[in-house]
Amino acid sequence: MAPLQDDKGTEVTEVSIPKRPISTVVFIIAMQTEASPLVEKFQLAQESNSVFPNGVPWVRYSGKYKDLNINIVSPGKDVVLGVDSVGTVSASLITYASIQALQPDLVINAGTAGGFKAKGACIGDVYLASDVAFHDRRIPIPIGKLSTGDSLDMCPHDEKAIVANDATVKDMEGAAVAYVADLLKTPVIFLKAVTDIVDGDRPTPEEFLQNLAAVTAALDQAATRVVDYINGKNLSEL
Amino acid sequence: MAPLQDDKGTEVTEVSIPKRPISTVVFIIAMQTEASPLVEKFQLAQESNSVFPNGVPWVRYSGKYKDLNINIVSPGKDVVLGVDSVGTVSASLITYASIQALQPDLVINAGTAGGFKAKGACIGDVYLASDVAFHDRRIPIPIGKLSTGDSLDMCPHDEKAIVANDATVKDMEGAAVAYVADLLKTPVIFLKAVTDIVDGDRPTPEEFLQNLAAVTAALDQAATRVVDYINGKNLSEL
Repeated sequence: MAPLQDDKGTEVTEVSIPKRPISTVVFIIAMQTEASPLVEKFQLAQESNSVFPNGVPWVRYSGKYKDLNINIVSPGKDVVLGVDSVGTVSASLITYASIQALQPDLVINAGTAGGFKAKGACIGDVYLASDVAFHDRRIPIPIGKLSTGDSLDMCPHDEKAIVANDATVKDMEGAAVAYVADLLKTPVIFLKAVTDIVDGDRPTPEEFLQNLAAVTAALDQAATRVVDYINGKNLSEL
Repeated sequence: MAPLQDDKGTEVTEVSIPKRPISTVVFIIAMQTEASPLVEKFQLAQESNSVFPNGVPWVRYSGKYKDLNINIVSPGKDVVLGVDSVGTVSASLITYASIQALQPDLVINAGTAGGFKAKGACIGDVYLASDVAFHDRRIPIPIGKLSTGDSLDMCPHDEKAIVANDATVKDMEGAAVAYVADLLKTPVIFLKAVTDIVDGDRPTPEEFLQNLAAVTAALDQAATRVVDYINGKNLSEL
């Protein structure tokens, strides 16, 4: 990065956005159920020579789709509990390790989310979020449209923070992925498909599980549209 | 690791504990105020050639103390907010990056914590915790004695989980450090000094700030005793 001077002679730092088409994309996807349709759609293969440390359950699928090197990275099954390693800690770790190992031009955090009907969200809607915030860190919190916390439910304290975040969708990974991508100066976008209405009447686990498969198909279509859109473009054109 | 057979002929995996004295120790410490006295005590110097990626605010101090290579790693100041990067996401990232870069024999997560008077905790007590759990992840939670969440306060939902965790102390990093250390098969111990009584009458921020300096001195003494104790010992002797 060459130092430039602005019209007052002050030195300013040039932000280096590559002037070439986007080449490598990393999807960060928390659950296997969310990842599988996209792995199939882009015809990716699971990598056996891991770029990750020995013993971690993280899974990477990769392959060529159009002009893009597509990677899908998931945290895999928790070695003790046997469930998908959802939440912010795993998401931040795989985002960090993936950016370090693969140096992507773009990170896409795709997944399911809760939506707020008060903000117009319906089951199956897919949101492209540009702003994220945490809602279960009760230390000063910036505002945002996607709100992230480590619980599937919403307790009253979290609800207050989500309202303050002016959120339309609520997930369990986005703000952690954003934090790490920002730390490592990597562009990131968020694609969140609504599986359940947070401010509705039905219990979240029931609604989430019932809609998961159908909504994942909507997510799959949206992700494909995004990938088709970015194919051949520079980052500055997004 | 050679596969062994037990007395029923079943293959079992040998856990490899090095049969040599502990050599490299990494302290993970969230706040500068907590780290400074230990940096001074062990006469460590800040590393300018970072083993971490460019642009992250993470800080490493290192040096030789008795027979040990001591490292203190802190997440540093948030580049946007200018405050210490406390909480689980930063703690998990620096634990991961430190284990990868430094291959320590032992990780020690040292810091301040809230204590529960119902469990006998007093201001200035220092706990050596062997069990940790999260309390703000409302998905199935294992039991433990140190309970970790991303907020300084305790909302009613967190309180229920903390009680279920049977916690004596409550912090904002421990369970994340434990998760990563376990993922990368690195032994870890937790040293937590009580700055405030969670189930007491005083507001936590006020009590925390008033006691921080004095309690950090207690933490400093306890950490020194632990380091003196492990000096020259094998992991199997701890």
